[in-house]
Amino acid sequence: MADYTPTVDDAEFLLNEVFDLPSQWAANVTLSQRIDGDTMTAMLNECSKLSSEMIAPLSRNGDEQSCQFDNGAVTTPDGFKQAYQAYSEGGWGGLTGNPEFGALGLPKALAVHCEEMFNAADISFSLYPMLTAGACLTLELHASDDIKQRFLPQMYSGQWSGSMCLTESHAGSDLGIIRTKAIPLETNKDIYTISGSKIFITGGEQDLSDNIIHLVLAKLPDAPAGARGISLFLVPRELENGQRNTVTCGSIEHKMGIKASASCVMNFDAAEGYLIGNAHKGLQAMFTMMNYERVGVGIQGIGAAERSYQCAAQYARERQQGRSSASTLSANQAQSLLVHADVRRMLLTMRAFTEAGRCLSTYVANQLDIAKYGDSDDKSDAETRVALLTPLVKAFCTDRGFESCVLGQQVLGGHGYIREWGQEQLVRDVRITQIYEGTNGIQAMDLLGRKVMPTAGANIRIVADEIMAFMDEHKTALPASMATALTASVESLLRVTEHLCAMDDSDNIGAAAVYYQDLLGYVFYGYMWAKMVVAATGDSQLHRNKRQLAGFYFNHLLPRVAGLQQSLMADLTSMMLIDEADF
Amino acid sequence: MADYTPTVDDAEFLLNEVFDLPSQWAANVTLSQRIDGDTMTAMLNECSKLSSEMIAPLSRNGDEQSCQFDNGAVTTPDGFKQAYQAYSEGGWGGLTGNPEFGALGLPKALAVHCEEMFNAADISFSLYPMLTAGACLTLELHASDDIKQRFLPQMYSGQWSGSMCLTESHAGSDLGIIRTKAIPLETNKDIYTISGSKIFITGGEQDLSDNIIHLVLAKLPDAPAGARGISLFLVPRELENGQRNTVTCGSIEHKMGIKASASCVMNFDAAEGYLIGNAHKGLQAMFTMMNYERVGVGIQGIGAAERSYQCAAQYARERQQGRSSASTLSANQAQSLLVHADVRRMLLTMRAFTEAGRCLSTYVANQLDIAKYGDSDDKSDAETRVALLTPLVKAFCTDRGFESCVLGQQVLGGHGYIREWGQEQLVRDVRITQIYEGTNGIQAMDLLGRKVMPTAGANIRIVADEIMAFMDEHKTALPASMATALTASVESLLRVTEHLCAMDDSDNIGAAAVYYQDLLGYVFYGYMWAKMVVAATGDSQLHRNKRQLAGFYFNHLLPRVAGLQQSLMADLTSMMLIDEADF
Repeated sequence: MADYTPTVDDAEFLLNEVFDLPSQWAANVTLSQRIDGDTMTAMLNECSKLSSEMIAPLSRNGDEQSCQFDNGAVTTPDGFKQAYQAYSEGGWGGLTGNPEFGALGLPKALAVHCEEMFNAADISFSLYPMLTAGACLTLELHASDDIKQRFLPQMYSGQWSGSMCLTESHAGSDLGIIRTKAIPLETNKDIYTISGSKIFITGGEQDLSDNIIHLVLAKLPDAPAGARGISLFLVPRELENGQRNTVTCGSIEHKMGIKASASCVMNFDAAEGYLIGNAHKGLQAMFTMMNYERVGVGIQGIGAAERSYQCAAQYARERQQGRSSASTLSANQAQSLLVHADVRRMLLTMRAFTEAGRCLSTYVANQLDIAKYGDSDDKSDAETRVALLTPLVKAFCTDRGFESCVLGQQVLGGHGYIREWGQEQLVRDVRITQIYEGTNGIQAMDLLGRKVMPTAGANIRIVADEIMAFMDEHKTALPASMATALTASVESLLRVTEHLCAMDDSDNIGAAAVYYQDLLGYVFYGYMWAKMVVAATGDSQLHRNKRQLAGFYFNHLLPRVAGLQQSLMADLTSMMLIDEADF
Repeated sequence: MADYTPTVDDAEFLLNEVFDLPSQWAANVTLSQRIDGDTMTAMLNECSKLSSEMIAPLSRNGDEQSCQFDNGAVTTPDGFKQAYQAYSEGGWGGLTGNPEFGALGLPKALAVHCEEMFNAADISFSLYPMLTAGACLTLELHASDDIKQRFLPQMYSGQWSGSMCLTESHAGSDLGIIRTKAIPLETNKDIYTISGSKIFITGGEQDLSDNIIHLVLAKLPDAPAGARGISLFLVPRELENGQRNTVTCGSIEHKMGIKASASCVMNFDAAEGYLIGNAHKGLQAMFTMMNYERVGVGIQGIGAAERSYQCAAQYARERQQGRSSASTLSANQAQSLLVHADVRRMLLTMRAFTEAGRCLSTYVANQLDIAKYGDSDDKSDAETRVALLTPLVKAFCTDRGFESCVLGQQVLGGHGYIREWGQEQLVRDVRITQIYEGTNGIQAMDLLGRKVMPTAGANIRIVADEIMAFMDEHKTALPASMATALTASVESLLRVTEHLCAMDDSDNIGAAAVYYQDLLGYVFYGYMWAKMVVAATGDSQLHRNKRQLAGFYFNHLLPRVAGLQQSLMADLTSMMLIDEADF
C-alpha cells in the first residue's frame, strides 16, 4: 500500500484562510484559554506524524491478518496495541472532551482534521477510539455526575473504551422493535440487569483497552411500544469491583472490508448496567452518539478518498503508458498517465470531491463549536445548520468518498484490482461508510422527512440565503461563471424544495429522498468551492490548484444538479405502483 | 449466497416479442437449418438448469477457496472440474462456433442469454470457456486451414481451452511497447520461439482442460515500432507430439474478487508457437478476440446485476423493518422493506438497468448475426452498429452493472457487507468488468475517438435516425411522455456530438469521452425501454412490469442525460491546465 501524507497544508488553509478560526477562537472566552494558531499547527503536525508513521503502515497487514476470534476473546492485528497505546498517550482520545474529566476541550473544527488523518491512515483502527469518543460525549450530556466521575476520566484517557449496542439480528434501521430487556434489581433500584443479543457491535470485544463500556439500548418492563419505549444503559465489561460482568462476545463477522475492526455479536446475560438519562428516552440520548458518529463516518469517506487519491496520483505520475496527442516520441516510448485527459478527469473528480468534503466537515464542525461555545444568539442558527448538515456529511461525503475510491482504483487499471497497491482495500473499507450509522438512504429520509419537510423548507432557505449573501459579498473575487452556476443550482434547490414541500404523500418523500440529498450535496460542495476560491487568491501551488479545481467542479460536477432536478420534478408515485409480489 | 433463477422468460420476451428473431432465423438460408423457436426454448431451459443447479452453487466456495498455486500448477476450487466437464459435454463451448469443426453454429442473439446465465451463476467459472470461445473465433477468422483443423475441434469441445496473452508488467493499455519476442526457427520457418513474460492472463494455467492454447502477442525481429509491429502467435501448453512446451505459470494474483479465476503470470521461455495471420498484423487479429470478449464482459455486468437484484428483492420481501406511512400496525410490528419507497428506488434502478442491458445485448448480438449471416446489403449497416456499440456494451453495461450490484448490497444494509448473503462478493466480482478487456475509459476513447469522431458523427446519426423512425412507427403504442423524453435525449446526443466533432483538440476528446459514453448509453437504454414497452401490451406480469419499469426509467434515470450534456458543453480544456507536478 502506498504511503500516506496527511494534508496538513489543506487543513491550515481551511482553518486559517477560509474560516479564519484562530481569530474566532481568540475572541471566545472558553476557547481562547485552550487554543491558538500555534497550538493548532502543533497539533496538526503531531497528528500527521502519528497517523502517517505509526497507524498507516498497519493498514495492509490489518486487512490480511484481520481480527481473530477465539472462545470469546478478540485479538486485533499486529501493531494495533502499540498504536492504540500511542494514540491514548498522545491525548487524542480526549481531544474535544470535557477538561473537567481530563480531556483537552479543543474545538471540533480542529478535531475533524485529526479524525480525517487517522481514518485515512486506517478506518479499522480509528473506529475503536471513534466509538469511545461518541460514548464519552453521550455520557457527558446525559449521564449523572456520579456516572461521569466514575467512567469519563478512564474513557478519555483511552484506558477504557466505549461501544454502541443498538442493532439486533431482527432490528437494524427499525430500533423500535428491539427485544433486549432491562429489569431493575429488587435490591438496588440503581442497578439493572440487561438481557439480550446485539449484532454488528464495533469494538464490542478487543484486546486494546482494559475495559469496554457498552452503551446499550434496551426496554424496561413498562416500556411503551416502539421507539418511544427504548432506554439507554451503561454496561461495563468489567465491574468496578473487578468482577467480570455477564457480557460476552459470541462471534465476529466476516466482512467485505474493515477486517481489522471487530464487528461483534454481543450477548448480555442479565448483565449489570446503569440507566443513562431518563427511562424510555434512550433513543434521544443515543442520538447524541449517533450524530457524533455520523459526522465521523462522513470524515472516514473523505479520509479514504484522500488516501486513494494519493496512491492514484503517484501511480499516474510514475506509470508510463501511451503518449499525449502532442508527443513526438516514438511508438516504442511512453509517457506518464497524466498526459491522458481521462486519467486527469478521474483524479480531478477525486480531488474536487475530497477537498470540498474536507471544507464541509470544517464548516459543520465550526457550527458544532458555535453551538457549544458561542453566544446564545448564534447558537440556534448553528444548531439548525448542524441538524440539517449532519445527515448530509454522513451520506454525501461517503457516497462521494466511495465514488472517489472506485475512481482511484480505476486509475490503476488491473493493478488497482490486485491487493498490492491497496486501492482495492480502500474500496472495500470505505464501502461500509455508506451502510453503517444509518444507511445513506436513512440519512436522506432524515434530511428530507425530519429536517426539511417539517420546517416547510425554512432551513433550506437559511442555507440558500447564506450562499447568496456570500456570493454578493464576494462578487469581485468570485469568477462570474462560477457565481452564475452556483446561483442557478441554489435556485434549483429552492424550486425542488418548494415542489416537494407542497406534497403530502410520504411515499413521495421516500422516493425523492436520496435524489434530494444528492442535490443539496452538490449545491453545498459548490458553495464550499466558492468559499475556497475566494480565499485562494495567491500564487502558491495550493491557491492555484484551488482555483483550477473549482473550475473543474463547476464545469463538470455541479452539472449533475440538472439531472437530479429532473428526477425530482418527475412523477414520484411510480415507485409504489409495482405489486410487492412482482419484485 | 441466495439461489439464482435464470430469467428465461425475459430472454424469450426479447427474442420472440421484441426482436422477433425466430422469424428472422427462419428466413435465413443458413440459420434456418440450425435453429427454430422450439430449439431456442430448449437451449434456454437446458442452460438455465446447468447454470442454476450446477454452476451457481459453486460460487461462494469458489470465492473462499480461491485458485491455489503450487510450483507452476493451478488448482481450481472444488466442483469446477465437474462443472467444466458438464459444460463441455453439453456443447456450450461451441455454441456459436463453426459446425465444420464440430461447433453448433447457433446465433449470437441466443448465445448472449446463455452467457448471461453462466456469468450470473459465476463470473470466475464462466471466464474459462469465455476465453476459449474468443480464441476459437480468432483462429476461425485469422488462422490457416491447417491450424484450424489441428486446434479448433478440441477447443470447441472444451477438451482444450484458450487464453489471451497481451498484458506485460510495463504494458497494459499501451500494447505498442510490449517486449515479448518471436524468432523464426532456422530449421523450420513455420515455427517460432516465443520469449517473454505476460501478466494478468486469465486461465493461463488451470486444471480443467487437457491442454491450454495461448494466443500471444509478440514482436518479430524486424517489427516496426509500436502497435504496428505486433504479431499474433498460437502457443500450446502441450505440443502435438505430447511434449510439454516451455511455457510456465510463475504465480497467480491475489485479487479483490473473481478469486476462482486464475490470473496468471505466464513465462514463455523460447516456447514453440505458430504465427496466426500476417506478420505485424497481430493486433488487428487480436481485436477479433478483444471485441468478442468485450461484449462478453458487458454481459458479465448484466448477469452479476441480475443475480444481485434477485438476492436484494428476496431480502426486501422477507426482511421486516419499519412500517409504511399508511400502516395501522403498532410500533412493535414491522412490514417488509418493500413498503419503503427508497428501497423500491434501489430495486427498480437495478431492474431498469439490467433489463435494458439485456435488451441491448440482444440488439448487438442480432447485429453480429446479421453481419455474419445476413444479406450483403444489411451487413455493412450491422457492422457499423456493432463497431459503435461494442465499447458501449462493454463499458456502459458494466458501469451500470457495478452501480446495480452496489445498490443490491445497499438494500441489505449491514447484511450486505458481511459475506453471508453473497452481495459483497458480487460487488467485488463485478468490479473487474470495468477494468479488464480495456478499462471503461479506454472503451470511451475508442467510442468517441475511433468510432464517432472519424465519421464526424455519421454513425451516431444512423442510430439517431433509427430511434426516431422507431418512435414514428410506434407513435400510438409508445406513451407520449416517453416519446417526448426520448426525443429530447436524442436531440441532446446529436447536439453534443456535433459540438465535439467541431473540436480538433484531442485532449478535449479524452476529457469528454466517458461523459459521452454515458450519454449515449442512457439514450440507448431509453431506446431499449421504448422497444420493450411497444412489445409489452399484454396483461401478463412481465408485460405489466415492463411498462412500469419503462416509466421509472424515463422519469428517474434518463434525466441523467441533462447533467451529462452540461458537462460536455462546458469548457473541457480545464482538465489539462494543472501542472503534472501538482497532482
